[in-house]
Amino acid sequence: MKRRLNIEEYAEGVLAGNRIILSKAITLVESRRPQDRALAVQLLERLLPHTGSSYRIGITGVPGVGKSTFIEAFGLYLIEQGHRPAVLAIDPSSPKTKGSILGDKTRMERLSLCPEAFIRPSASGRSLGGVAHATHEAMLLCEAAGFDVVIIETVGVGQSEVLVKSMVDFFLLLMLAGAGDELQGIKKGIMEMADALVINKADGDNIKAAEQAKHAYENALHLFRAPENGWFPPVLTCSALYNKGIKRIWDTLLQFREQTQQNGFWEKNRQNQRLEWLRFALQEQLLEAFYAHEEVKNKLPDIEAAVLHNKLLPQHAARLLIELFLNQQTEV
Amino acid sequence: MKRRLNIEEYAEGVLAGNRIILSKAITLVESRRPQDRALAVQLLERLLPHTGSSYRIGITGVPGVGKSTFIEAFGLYLIEQGHRPAVLAIDPSSPKTKGSILGDKTRMERLSLCPEAFIRPSASGRSLGGVAHATHEAMLLCEAAGFDVVIIETVGVGQSEVLVKSMVDFFLLLMLAGAGDELQGIKKGIMEMADALVINKADGDNIKAAEQAKHAYENALHLFRAPENGWFPPVLTCSALYNKGIKRIWDTLLQFREQTQQNGFWEKNRQNQRLEWLRFALQEQLLEAFYAHEEVKNKLPDIEAAVLHNKLLPQHAARLLIELFLNQQTEV
Repeated sequence: MKRRLNIEEYAEGVLAGNRIILSKAITLVESRRPQDRALAVQLLERLLPHTGSSYRIGITGVPGVGKSTFIEAFGLYLIEQGHRPAVLAIDPSSPKTKGSILGDKTRMERLSLCPEAFIRPSASGRSLGGVAHATHEAMLLCEAAGFDVVIIETVGVGQSEVLVKSMVDFFLLLMLAGAGDELQGIKKGIMEMADALVINKADGDNIKAAEQAKHAYENALHLFRAPENGWFPPVLTCSALYNKGIKRIWDTLLQFREQTQQNGFWEKNRQNQRLEWLRFALQEQLLEAFYAHEEVKNKLPDIEAAVLHNKLLPQHAARLLIELFLNQQTEV
Repeated sequence: MKRRLNIEEYAEGVLAGNRIILSKAITLVESRRPQDRALAVQLLERLLPHTGSSYRIGITGVPGVGKSTFIEAFGLYLIEQGHRPAVLAIDPSSPKTKGSILGDKTRMERLSLCPEAFIRPSASGRSLGGVAHATHEAMLLCEAAGFDVVIIETVGVGQSEVLVKSMVDFFLLLMLAGAGDELQGIKKGIMEMADALVINKADGDNIKAAEQAKHAYENALHLFRAPENGWFPPVLTCSALYNKGIKRIWDTLLQFREQTQQNGFWEKNRQNQRLEWLRFALQEQLLEAFYAHEEVKNKLPDIEAAVLHNKLLPQHAARLLIELFLNQQTEV
């Protein structure tokens, strides 16, 4: 039976860049057991002063866009430049059973063999919010362990992008050139969040189509208003498979960092993100306590049915349920 | 001193289409006083069986796009067709003081003189959520009073669109042709919600630019995936000022209703909207109770500062605050 590590052993191991202890620490922050959670909070708050110095990068795109190939090429390039990349994931589709992203490390075979890189599949078996919180905390651990670029991968199909956007400095949307409707499956709102669009698989017969797609997206982006940070999202092309265009993408990210550090947006964004995570956690934990409440659970189906069939006003129904929730608290 | 109406007087007046009583009833649902609120809930639940039969239409667009002129032309056309339109508004910018939309009825001078139409400015002096709830309930009252088309106007600049979208059957985005960047000020997410884009001021020298903008938007929309309801949002042009293209817009709305009533989306959407309003009201009222809690109010600034300066994890901070909130309830 393995001895459990104590806080100091965890903290020293992580700070020394010990990958085995880092992995164990991530497992700890992913755990839902109350005693693990208490330990995780202590560990994380002990390490907080050593976090925050990485470049946090979100990468999304629909399945088939070549995310793994891209992240492998990008990560190898970063290592060449002297960086230490960590790759995490938020996968809403239960990766433990299906492994749709990062579940299989062999998908980034070369990168996963590099001692400078650290790859970790998505947490699983929890709500999307839970997975996102675990990934957020895993990111802090990777930073404390000395990784200076943290890449968070997700699938471009829903709510997970909003969560990734709220924990990264730069959000990159990978796309494919295609038959004019290449954004199938990508929600429009996701384009709005991107700091750059990258059209992958710009190689061979596909180069011309990629250039055309680039122009189409540039035109589409121009229809929208200037972003708050003063950065106009560029549209780039690359071939992750043939390792083309990767330098240009990293240069773009460096330029973004320089520009937003100068205009103050970089730090402002980080601070906003912290408060956003607080609000998000508050809302989530309040609703969790509410829906776990016995009387609420008992009455909810009837009240929902009454609202559905237009017998009860939504606002009135909400008031009834919340009185149940808060009164019960009083009586206990 | 005016005598207060009782429930039956309100209900009978509204059902008889008495505009003065309808106005008073809307004032009642806008009130935040607890005794008014109780009466409002009774009245609304008494009237619920008489609601739901109107065509609920949301209209948005940035200031200057000609919303009032459009709604006037559209409303007058509807009256010609034998309909009775009601026009409501959700204006996040405190219309009582600034009157940015609908504050000044003279902006729809001809429509406001028609006995078949009913125009009501946005509720004010409340949070956006509160204004939206009041407008939602005003819509129900208008339906009970026999108005068979309810138009809800808002400004295309933020969160209010999401709320309007969740209470209407059809969401129309008004735009202008311009210098290629005509969507300045419109968030990309709003385009995603639109069931039709209408380019206004397609008249005189502007006709060619409007046609070009139409093609640009059609191309932009084609980049995105098919909507769940099977309806591909068309891009139309009109001149509200010269009364051109209005019929075509109403025909499009009729076609939408026919198509979605056939494929079941119409009713499914209405049912989803009711549950969405319940969830929204729950979340809002829970957070309201939370932030109004004395101990939470006292501790929040320090805890937020600790999160902001990276001394406390967001999830941990949330847990501390919620324990405060729920324990206090226990002690009372």
